[in-house]
Amino acid sequence: MPSRTELANAIRALAMDAVETAKSGHPGMPMGMADIAEVLWNDFLRHNPANPKWANRDRFVLSNGHGSMLIYALLHLSGYDLPIDELKRFRQLHSKTAGHPEASETPGVETTTGPLGQGLANAVGMALAEKVLAARFNREGFRVVDHATYVFLGDGCLMEGISHEAASLAGTLKLGKLTAIWDDNGISIDGEVHGWFTDDTPARFEAYGWNVIRGVDGHDPAAIAAALAGSRGSDRPTLICARTIIGYGAPNKQGKEACHGAPLGKDEIAITRDRIGWPHAPFVVPPEIYAGWDARTRGAELESAWDAVFARYRAAHPDLAAEFERRLAGDLPEGFAAAADAWIGKLQAEGPVVASRKASQMALDAFGPLLPELIGGSADLAGSNLTIWKGSKDVNSDDASANYVHYGVREFGMSAIANGLALHGGFIPYDATFLVFSDYARNAVRMSALIPTHAIHVYTHDSIGLGEDGPTHQPVEHLASLRYIPNNPVWRPCDAVESAVAWKAAIERRDGPSCLVFSRQNLAHQARTADQVADIARGGYVLSDPPEAKFDLILIGTGSEVEVAMQAMRILADRGIAARVVSMPSTNVFDMQPVEYREGVLPSWCRKRVAVEAGVTDFWRKYVGLDGTVVGLDRFGASAPADALYRYFGITADHVADAAAALR
Amino acid sequence: MPSRTELANAIRALAMDAVETAKSGHPGMPMGMADIAEVLWNDFLRHNPANPKWANRDRFVLSNGHGSMLIYALLHLSGYDLPIDELKRFRQLHSKTAGHPEASETPGVETTTGPLGQGLANAVGMALAEKVLAARFNREGFRVVDHATYVFLGDGCLMEGISHEAASLAGTLKLGKLTAIWDDNGISIDGEVHGWFTDDTPARFEAYGWNVIRGVDGHDPAAIAAALAGSRGSDRPTLICARTIIGYGAPNKQGKEACHGAPLGKDEIAITRDRIGWPHAPFVVPPEIYAGWDARTRGAELESAWDAVFARYRAAHPDLAAEFERRLAGDLPEGFAAAADAWIGKLQAEGPVVASRKASQMALDAFGPLLPELIGGSADLAGSNLTIWKGSKDVNSDDASANYVHYGVREFGMSAIANGLALHGGFIPYDATFLVFSDYARNAVRMSALIPTHAIHVYTHDSIGLGEDGPTHQPVEHLASLRYIPNNPVWRPCDAVESAVAWKAAIERRDGPSCLVFSRQNLAHQARTADQVADIARGGYVLSDPPEAKFDLILIGTGSEVEVAMQAMRILADRGIAARVVSMPSTNVFDMQPVEYREGVLPSWCRKRVAVEAGVTDFWRKYVGLDGTVVGLDRFGASAPADALYRYFGITADHVADAAAALR
Repeated sequence: MPSRTELANAIRALAMDAVETAKSGHPGMPMGMADIAEVLWNDFLRHNPANPKWANRDRFVLSNGHGSMLIYALLHLSGYDLPIDELKRFRQLHSKTAGHPEASETPGVETTTGPLGQGLANAVGMALAEKVLAARFNREGFRVVDHATYVFLGDGCLMEGISHEAASLAGTLKLGKLTAIWDDNGISIDGEVHGWFTDDTPARFEAYGWNVIRGVDGHDPAAIAAALAGSRGSDRPTLICARTIIGYGAPNKQGKEACHGAPLGKDEIAITRDRIGWPHAPFVVPPEIYAGWDARTRGAELESAWDAVFARYRAAHPDLAAEFERRLAGDLPEGFAAAADAWIGKLQAEGPVVASRKASQMALDAFGPLLPELIGGSADLAGSNLTIWKGSKDVNSDDASANYVHYGVREFGMSAIANGLALHGGFIPYDATFLVFSDYARNAVRMSALIPTHAIHVYTHDSIGLGEDGPTHQPVEHLASLRYIPNNPVWRPCDAVESAVAWKAAIERRDGPSCLVFSRQNLAHQARTADQVADIARGGYVLSDPPEAKFDLILIGTGSEVEVAMQAMRILADRGIAARVVSMPSTNVFDMQPVEYREGVLPSWCRKRVAVEAGVTDFWRKYVGLDGTVVGLDRFGASAPADALYRYFGITADHVADAAAALR
Repeated sequence: MPSRTELANAIRALAMDAVETAKSGHPGMPMGMADIAEVLWNDFLRHNPANPKWANRDRFVLSNGHGSMLIYALLHLSGYDLPIDELKRFRQLHSKTAGHPEASETPGVETTTGPLGQGLANAVGMALAEKVLAARFNREGFRVVDHATYVFLGDGCLMEGISHEAASLAGTLKLGKLTAIWDDNGISIDGEVHGWFTDDTPARFEAYGWNVIRGVDGHDPAAIAAALAGSRGSDRPTLICARTIIGYGAPNKQGKEACHGAPLGKDEIAITRDRIGWPHAPFVVPPEIYAGWDARTRGAELESAWDAVFARYRAAHPDLAAEFERRLAGDLPEGFAAAADAWIGKLQAEGPVVASRKASQMALDAFGPLLPELIGGSADLAGSNLTIWKGSKDVNSDDASANYVHYGVREFGMSAIANGLALHGGFIPYDATFLVFSDYARNAVRMSALIPTHAIHVYTHDSIGLGEDGPTHQPVEHLASLRYIPNNPVWRPCDAVESAVAWKAAIERRDGPSCLVFSRQNLAHQARTADQVADIARGGYVLSDPPEAKFDLILIGTGSEVEVAMQAMRILADRGIAARVVSMPSTNVFDMQPVEYREGVLPSWCRKRVAVEAGVTDFWRKYVGLDGTVVGLDRFGASAPADALYRYFGITADHVADAAAALR
């Protein structure tokens, strides 16, 4: 039987060899955290390599994702579907071993990490998901939801602001099944951290209400095991502070920045092999080492024991069991689409004139009762974002049978936690802030699209229409900027009907996120036929045509500016100019429609096109080209009542009509 | 002589009346912090209302900027050029009293705040500026730089991640002249904070190495004064934890969220007037209260005492005095432009083939010796961003006679601190990270443009060209997104010459920020005439024309893709198609050129246009219209060597040539 150190050395060897082969990567962290990972994975982590999606598995997140060879080595050694050939192709095109761990590429990778600090927040989301799901589904005698969440993090994660947001909320919510292990190696890319990072990190986490285990020798398996055992049963999240040596085992480079982000080099690797007693050729792992790591038998036992519990649970609570399976599969309840369409039809008939943020809340009130998997929240703007609906109940530290999280003023943490909730399974998270503060969360929004996660980001107060709060709070470039994130459909509805359609689309988009952008101010209701209502979901459609659809030019609007376009159309009609009006609630979704549909809405023959949106104008050149024009805002806003601002910045029907009439 | 409370009540009255008149705003914070502000401004703050730009004034920052009526009241009462009529026009178009404090609108407002947490980081930057400037200019017997920085902050600021980044670095750098006063009122927008914010904040700040003064009654002037006195002379930054009651004085609304962000209402205001003993009509302040607040005499004395010291300093150290005045005025050294042009000419002649991040470092080596006001830094990527030049010296807690800050992995804090450095005066800060992580700093970059500050944001590893680190690290939408921030010129140079021009432009742009975007990989050198070299500064120019400038189509490129366009031009030439090549290092700057110039580069008659850039394609429609085409990347990247990625995603000369030839 190999020693624990020999098992850990397999990680070290694979990491240094894969990085050397790729001529790129980060050997230092995997070599430094190998002993910790070995103890965690072999003695604590409850998982099944044959089924990376087992619902009750422990979650493992590598927040310091640059050390990706650590997780690839762990997955390979423990028996996941990640053959040695994939490790040989580390960081190459189409391999399963990308430069940073990607959930969509590699079985067993729970989330995509690399952007520092976000893995910790994802893990907080997963632990929160476990707590809320357990409160919903566990019953006397049946702990069907009962797993730990482990996260590795480095100094970089701890320096990032998001670590504060995520750890603070985790402490408040008493996520006792979350265990973070800090790779306290004293090195970051610029060198020894004492010049720029002198926090008393244990004291800091105690200030968050965490259970902190100090001074663990990260190369002493017994000490690591004792710490991990000490994290069990805590009613608070645990931080294990593990002192390690980066690049442990490489005689000339360990403990130095040199081994952080570059291959060790042939000579150092040879010396390291000798020093750690690993005589095997690159990518060769002896059978006894594989045997020491193999988690497949134990994993199958764990899952099958859980299966047995779940079978009894199903017998005792058939409805709950079915609901659990539905939610974990990510299936929507039967009848959701029909119910949503009925609600949309009702709105079209009744035509409420409300702010679209209010329409959003109405949609939540309509859809929420059908969707227990919805878990909402706001970054301390619940009453402004209107994200609390009639069925909302606050998640508290002592009562997680709820569906609403008061995230506090923590936009970035919120969105990364939402990603974790979605990744865990069983939830469709929606979060919310003002549109301008999507900036604070921006990379988490990007990660929603990249991972991808079924997260819904709600952004209200979507323009200068927010008024007096002024330019710090008025988005200008944000709509365009969010639309440019790949795989991130942005919706900006023009009335209550489009708002409900946007919510429906976001809920039904199981394989990725959406951004729903709503107004502060009231919006007019638009008349539509049933066909037009159906076409909203295509992202852009003809809202109004002159008789016989003979038009001279096309006006395109979104959100609050659709009514501006409609009024401009009427002004133009009075001047004898016939205009089509296109409502374009989601440019991203419109762009995905077949060319015939798009041509039907924006026919090529008509180059007289005017787009109107209270934001940067250049974005709209893709629709109006060089021959059209755009009415918008290419400067920061100002502090004044909304109506005054619209007039001052010329985003008015008169101005749109004049601009349209001036087109040659 | 009015009592302290009577003086403070003037703030309360002005805040509630102005918010009531505007029907919009935040009365709770000004009413809650009025007593603290009164003690600070009347007994501690060293400032001169007649000269808001006095170099050695204490800095005062309202990080909880929604309480803007607090600072407007303070500025008005103490004698700044902010008449009562401006307070009556609170939050109205073109008033000097915007919804949130704006440095560009109101004399005495040091920085624009509202986006929570950033004011704290700005203040850290100001305190850092003071420390570094003092180390540079103070001499035996002459403390010409010697002032405090005070910042008010609320629970929201403390929840934001940026508070962690900024406070942690402030602790490490021992910014002893920074005093933060926490408005500990237990209320945020969602209500009582105990449901989402349970940090032991004093312990947290002690973990950062701060001097923490606990449990101060924020309505007891003596306690406040004692705490402020206790912050003096500390070698560490101070956090004063001041317990307050939000909306203090309003009998039915104080202590509740209801008074946070809405007018109190006529009835409550009437009762409040009665309760606090303020019988005066709205916006009427009795002369004795004005007299109690008037800081003009004391301010003139303070400044003139400093003037006297500075006069003796000038006599003893004439060169230093002149340099101090030059730097505080924001003037560049005489001869900078000529020296920079000489360097640019030399680069054009020598034609080095280097990565543009290396060219950036070469520019720093060339310009740095001329510019002692440059203060650099990186978010733990110094060796990758190449922001350390030969004259760089690290700022340490015990030696601030330096010009380089190791910011740690704190992108958002870094950029907001850079804004504070620039706002203080005497510095041109540059910060740096990978382009993709501009996301983390995004709202601080926006604030650079909005405030505006002369900050330079350096972003390297600007595309899939970074290679193996994969999609988490590969920017795709970032160039376009940054270009859309108003007042934020983005430069993406194609070789060492353009890199130097970009640096020169950013340095000379005294009234706002710039983003400089550089490649990881080597870039070809481009041949240019002297006129072409001169035109780089116009943002876009003709890099190559066929003989007699007769061309069939135009290829537009930026950065690493300029060489792709040049190669495509040669391929097309072989096929008998004549192409102009336009290099467009800064679309923002190009767009500001006169129409004649732009027409000369992109003549209207030529609609056959191809843009090539390794990022989202839609941005380029503003230049190529509906008739042209764009070669770029509308999805996330992948993990592989850079060359493989360029081939895989089709960003190649062959593809560009084919796309061009296919244009009808």
